[in-house]
Amino acid sequence: MPAAELRAALHEAADIVADYLEDIEGYAVFPPVSPGELTRRLDGPPPEEPEPLEDILRDVRAQVVPNVTHWQHPSYFAYFPASASGIGLLGEMVASGLNANAFLWRTSPVGAELEGITVDWLREGLGLPADFDGVFNDTASISSLAALAAARQHATGNASQAGLLASAPLRLYTSAEAHSSIERAAMILGIGREGVRKVAVDRDRAMDPIALGQAITEDRAAGWLPAGVVATIGTTSTTAVDPVAAIADVCAAEGLWLHVDAAYAGPTALIPAMRGHFAGWERADSIVINPHKWMFTPFDCSLLLTRRMSILREALSLVPEYLRTTDGKDTGRDYNEYIPQLGRRARGIKMWMQLRYFGLSGLRARLQEHLDLAAELAAAIDADPDFERLAAAPFGLVCFRWRPARLVGREGEAAVAAELDAANERLMNRLNETGRLFLSHTRVDGSFTLRIAIGNIRTERRHVEDAWRLVRELAAELDGADASGRR
Amino acid sequence: MPAAELRAALHEAADIVADYLEDIEGYAVFPPVSPGELTRRLDGPPPEEPEPLEDILRDVRAQVVPNVTHWQHPSYFAYFPASASGIGLLGEMVASGLNANAFLWRTSPVGAELEGITVDWLREGLGLPADFDGVFNDTASISSLAALAAARQHATGNASQAGLLASAPLRLYTSAEAHSSIERAAMILGIGREGVRKVAVDRDRAMDPIALGQAITEDRAAGWLPAGVVATIGTTSTTAVDPVAAIADVCAAEGLWLHVDAAYAGPTALIPAMRGHFAGWERADSIVINPHKWMFTPFDCSLLLTRRMSILREALSLVPEYLRTTDGKDTGRDYNEYIPQLGRRARGIKMWMQLRYFGLSGLRARLQEHLDLAAELAAAIDADPDFERLAAAPFGLVCFRWRPARLVGREGEAAVAAELDAANERLMNRLNETGRLFLSHTRVDGSFTLRIAIGNIRTERRHVEDAWRLVRELAAELDGADASGRR
Repeated sequence: MPAAELRAALHEAADIVADYLEDIEGYAVFPPVSPGELTRRLDGPPPEEPEPLEDILRDVRAQVVPNVTHWQHPSYFAYFPASASGIGLLGEMVASGLNANAFLWRTSPVGAELEGITVDWLREGLGLPADFDGVFNDTASISSLAALAAARQHATGNASQAGLLASAPLRLYTSAEAHSSIERAAMILGIGREGVRKVAVDRDRAMDPIALGQAITEDRAAGWLPAGVVATIGTTSTTAVDPVAAIADVCAAEGLWLHVDAAYAGPTALIPAMRGHFAGWERADSIVINPHKWMFTPFDCSLLLTRRMSILREALSLVPEYLRTTDGKDTGRDYNEYIPQLGRRARGIKMWMQLRYFGLSGLRARLQEHLDLAAELAAAIDADPDFERLAAAPFGLVCFRWRPARLVGREGEAAVAAELDAANERLMNRLNETGRLFLSHTRVDGSFTLRIAIGNIRTERRHVEDAWRLVRELAAELDGADASGRR
Repeated sequence: MPAAELRAALHEAADIVADYLEDIEGYAVFPPVSPGELTRRLDGPPPEEPEPLEDILRDVRAQVVPNVTHWQHPSYFAYFPASASGIGLLGEMVASGLNANAFLWRTSPVGAELEGITVDWLREGLGLPADFDGVFNDTASISSLAALAAARQHATGNASQAGLLASAPLRLYTSAEAHSSIERAAMILGIGREGVRKVAVDRDRAMDPIALGQAITEDRAAGWLPAGVVATIGTTSTTAVDPVAAIADVCAAEGLWLHVDAAYAGPTALIPAMRGHFAGWERADSIVINPHKWMFTPFDCSLLLTRRMSILREALSLVPEYLRTTDGKDTGRDYNEYIPQLGRRARGIKMWMQLRYFGLSGLRARLQEHLDLAAELAAAIDADPDFERLAAAPFGLVCFRWRPARLVGREGEAAVAAELDAANERLMNRLNETGRLFLSHTRVDGSFTLRIAIGNIRTERRHVEDAWRLVRELAAELDGADASGRR
């Protein structure tokens, strides 16, 4: 593309993005399309001849932009938030333009060095000791896979070389509430789903450290080789918090690698008052935190911190020993040695821009606002007799359900439980169909549970208030319809 | 960031990228920095307070842009090319602005459906049969990891569930010339480096299929469980081509998964006249091709094609069986089930824009130009008595060395071999120090070998001619210096 044309097109793309974010509240949060519809509209034989740029950009505006699920919408409350700050987008644009593949220091010096600088800035901001070092990955799936590869290496001493042949069967421990990425990592690592033991949780859905210790003892007696424990601070379903300090005691006593999954909740450790939830994580061997979730960094950016960089490298690196330097301290560090991939983005660039733009104080203020909004929503739900909360809300997620008046007092009956589930599922679908918000569900103790996750950088008080108003309005409507037999 | 400020900043970022690409030839291809220098300049305590946007963007221009290794420079000839087309950059910008995480159909309908459409466009353009389906990953490392997880699942029947406990020791076969990502995948998968058997190559550095068959027979007799073979079309060191058709025969006879690594050379299969190099790959179980290498797609984008999507899913997916649909044909496909990660970029957006912009004919024309330039360079080297080629150049890479006149005719001597290596290493370092180009090396049969890899979308004939002129000039200079005893 000629230089002048490219410049004009880049400005057009800037306007597409600026228009999108300016108009974001005009979109139905979940787009009004059904599976296969876009394929029927856009498919055809592969384009043989070039098409004019203006046609393509017109279709981007008409077909692409409206038909994503609008994660950037301030009323996107589903799953966990993942919204991109403006400064982050600038960083993403610049890094894309440079197209620097940061696998060796030599393939992107500023990429490698800004990664070192910003990993350390985050480490310090999060209140973790200086013996933690780290690396950026694309996702928590990869950060945890890498951490558990290191745990496996630590337990076996030679898995990267000898495979799992010579090893006793490996066990990983986590709770039933852990994210699926942990079990998926076990599948990939050759440990298998059967090698993951789900430790019992207490009534707050937090891992029971006594049950953990017992499980390890049982397994050792049965010939398993315990390799590591994954504790979660802020589980995906309900943001439960495992007792990391007690779990760290067990790991220390048993000589096991402790990996802490704080992918979602981790950023709140920037706020000193929140650090009670994180007690003990400073004793972990590795920690994952996703800036692309609740730190407003454009997707993708997952931070893996570890106090054992050399084991991580031993698990994943193929550089011969005699070429190694002392952990990259004196020469440029080659980050690919600490991750499963060779090629990698220079994520330090956007992170460096973002941390300077917000400052730690700016990030704390935005997180605190989200924490406050979640607490307000939780209080409003608690105050409404037609609704009930189904889990504690220590971070930005509120888990609750509708409890229609006609069912109150009859909760013990099995038929009522089924009716409650059906009513809440119907309510969620009706809410999402309006396009005015988007939320997802989980099951808490088997019950269908609505989740409102607050943490989008564009979410303000009015969006949460509107959401709560809409929940109550549609519930009342459904209740009226049910009462008049029109269900 | 307020909307108006964000719009202005996005336009400023557009100008940063446009200026960069317009001025790209003004940069030293490898930046004039040494390890640690940027850290000393840019590090400090984590920023507590926000900094003004203009300061950050000023530093981006002053500190970041000049200090990447300039992969976009038309005289970047190192490793393999990875340059971003203008249209690809627009796609990257738009997708970043939408920030859509395409792990479920539901989390990005247009992301999922454009992925389906463009994977099929590429499949058809590459001349592969319709029973190949596929998915985009970040890197070939991940595509091959996923493919080999599927191979492992295919061989064991239950590795994702049971791990490798019950299995006989697994073996993967590849040549000594294979990319390190294959061995790294084996490390991650619990097969270990010892589970990778390097099959002998012929004098063209292509895998010997007879030796492969013998290795499998030997291993079976010794109790190994052969799990898969990785053939390479265009090896990293010299772009050697394994005889895929003969290897496919062995795999068919032995019931082994065949994975073809065409990460670099794959795009040239868009040109029907090139398909001789790819004979037999249509019989592979899986193939990896990297559009972010020689198809001008901004980093990252790796295409994994497979005729066995269901085994790939079985190896990597955690969705319970009873929730599954028939391979995603009738409802939206959830692409995360086919990859190691959960979260993922919507890479179909940029690919859809790029394929329409160039058309297959446009991509073919650009590839053909690079093939022609490489052939011309190879011919020029062959015609120069002071240089010799050390490998065939079927694609865009030319491997050669300088052979100073004073050493000609003495190649048999060990001292001369060492002198040749030293002379070529010195020549490469001198060339790279000029900043006028950037190239990397390999060893061919133990000899230090210069590599010039042509395939950057901005590379024109003049850049290759300039490079070749500079190589000869600096060689002559070094020769003069050596001759006068000033080395």
